[in-house]
Amino acid sequence: MLLSSHKLENSKLRLPAGVKDFLFEETQQCRELESRLMNTLMSKGCREIITPTFEYSEVFSQAGEGRNALEDKTYRFLDRDGNLLALRADFTAQIARIAASRFAQSEMPIRLCYSGKVFRAEPHHAGRSREKWQIGFELLGAGDIATDVEAVNNILEGLAALGLHEIRVAIGHIGYFNGLIAEAGCAGETLQRLKYLIARKEATGLREFVTQAELAPLVQEALLQLPALHGGSEIFPLARRFARSAISHEAIAHLEAMLLALQTHLQAGKIFVDLSEVEGMGYYTGIMLRAFVAGVGQEIGGGGRYDELIARLGADLPAVGFYFDVDLLVRAVNELAR
Amino acid sequence: MLLSSHKLENSKLRLPAGVKDFLFEETQQCRELESRLMNTLMSKGCREIITPTFEYSEVFSQAGEGRNALEDKTYRFLDRDGNLLALRADFTAQIARIAASRFAQSEMPIRLCYSGKVFRAEPHHAGRSREKWQIGFELLGAGDIATDVEAVNNILEGLAALGLHEIRVAIGHIGYFNGLIAEAGCAGETLQRLKYLIARKEATGLREFVTQAELAPLVQEALLQLPALHGGSEIFPLARRFARSAISHEAIAHLEAMLLALQTHLQAGKIFVDLSEVEGMGYYTGIMLRAFVAGVGQEIGGGGRYDELIARLGADLPAVGFYFDVDLLVRAVNELAR
Repeated sequence: MLLSSHKLENSKLRLPAGVKDFLFEETQQCRELESRLMNTLMSKGCREIITPTFEYSEVFSQAGEGRNALEDKTYRFLDRDGNLLALRADFTAQIARIAASRFAQSEMPIRLCYSGKVFRAEPHHAGRSREKWQIGFELLGAGDIATDVEAVNNILEGLAALGLHEIRVAIGHIGYFNGLIAEAGCAGETLQRLKYLIARKEATGLREFVTQAELAPLVQEALLQLPALHGGSEIFPLARRFARSAISHEAIAHLEAMLLALQTHLQAGKIFVDLSEVEGMGYYTGIMLRAFVAGVGQEIGGGGRYDELIARLGADLPAVGFYFDVDLLVRAVNELAR
Repeated sequence: MLLSSHKLENSKLRLPAGVKDFLFEETQQCRELESRLMNTLMSKGCREIITPTFEYSEVFSQAGEGRNALEDKTYRFLDRDGNLLALRADFTAQIARIAASRFAQSEMPIRLCYSGKVFRAEPHHAGRSREKWQIGFELLGAGDIATDVEAVNNILEGLAALGLHEIRVAIGHIGYFNGLIAEAGCAGETLQRLKYLIARKEATGLREFVTQAELAPLVQEALLQLPALHGGSEIFPLARRFARSAISHEAIAHLEAMLLALQTHLQAGKIFVDLSEVEGMGYYTGIMLRAFVAGVGQEIGGGGRYDELIARLGADLPAVGFYFDVDLLVRAVNELAR
């Protein structure tokens, strides 16, 4: 009797996998980090917005792609009136909705930032967090190189404000890859598999893939080179040699101009180009960004340019954005303190 | 064709009823208010915690009662592993879980505060918010009068820090009512109906109810008097006259001691006793609190003492807490500025 009542109590004390309580010291540390990062973003002109924790499920349906697909990871539930709602799975999708419905007539660019949770129904065994705290920014209504440079600077300054070490931002451009495979007829899961192999720089798997896919020899060669195309401007000649389409050449020219503008950071080793950065949200159309810091063996945030997402909702606004993973930032800060 | 595509776009731009976007100025105002209120609570010794946005549904199942029942208003959904989860419907229920599982061995009292959203599946036609921003505090591990006084002081100082006018805190005690009906055999929906009539001070409905319920004449008389029992210490003699049980007398003595300790605020008209404060969360066992300010025609927050909730989860910790409704606080601030 006592045991069963004790068991009942315990079942009411458990937390589901993938979510957690933040107690006093941890909350304080997160809030300090949040305040420092948000203040840095605001000092760069960003203004904060707060989006709903849930809204209609369809808002998130075009947010993901491939390994990052949110479709299967979105928490959905019915409202009392029978509508299908979803927990916030992605801030950018919400901000695109807001931009299309409320910012179309505003003065551009619009710089905004946010801090909040996204929710992902990760498999139980994966041990991943199902509630992820993200801080991010979006620059809306400007599609020029200067705005992409501004995005990279925001990331670097944000991470520097947290006192982190070995800050590195990888800059890719999905246009280069898209140009390479433009005529290869690669789509759907095959395309996802290809992107996965390139992003993971899996040489053997990639070689098998391009052979089996019976791609044209020049395309094969170009794709096999991709994982090696990272570094400074020294990679551009080789990258250009494989580029057969205007879209690939434009991507290279875009990255070249960015490196020029970010030369000091390039020389300091804080940024590098990585043309194998081809995986990410399905809505990316231009540069793709990932950031790394000492003490954490994975990217502590990601982002990119999405010039078509808001247009599909009715307002032709180019945009670039980036999110930081707060849990990983805290881990990085604590690693440094050890 | 164009029209249907336009319609599709619009459907992706809509927000469900009861949730909203906070744009720049509004976010800034909410954050300033949040920061001022949280800083006041922290200056009173509270430390912030952050609870998960969702957890197992059963955590919230004992949170509500009657008209405030959360059972029908909780958003539930299945996790990938088949467990029934629920969106945070109540902070206090989560904090009780945390207290029982992690604070049992801590030094008491524990003072904590929080800021975040609760989610309620309100009927569509009600026009009510389904995502409510609450800031609140809980004082755990102390059941004495001084701690109840501290809770009232926290409320008054928090509201004063926001520059609000005509601040008033109503203090009730569920023990007085419980004592009155102890032998009346009133339970379930009948009890809820009775509490509703008293809390709304509905004289006619209340008279019909007590007649139909065939309660003892003394109980009838006592219940009919309840809506009039509000004010300062002048109400205690009448309240004592109707009290037949120790529990009612203890409640009166408790309130009398609180008024003494809060005498300055009583004289300034900032607090008053209201024995018709009988509706609220089902877990309340002692004082019941509601706060009012100029410019908003409803309470801007509520709370009370819950000495059994954490004990039911395995740790015998008395507790008192209060939440502020951020949207209503913002409305009050804006009303003052008009």
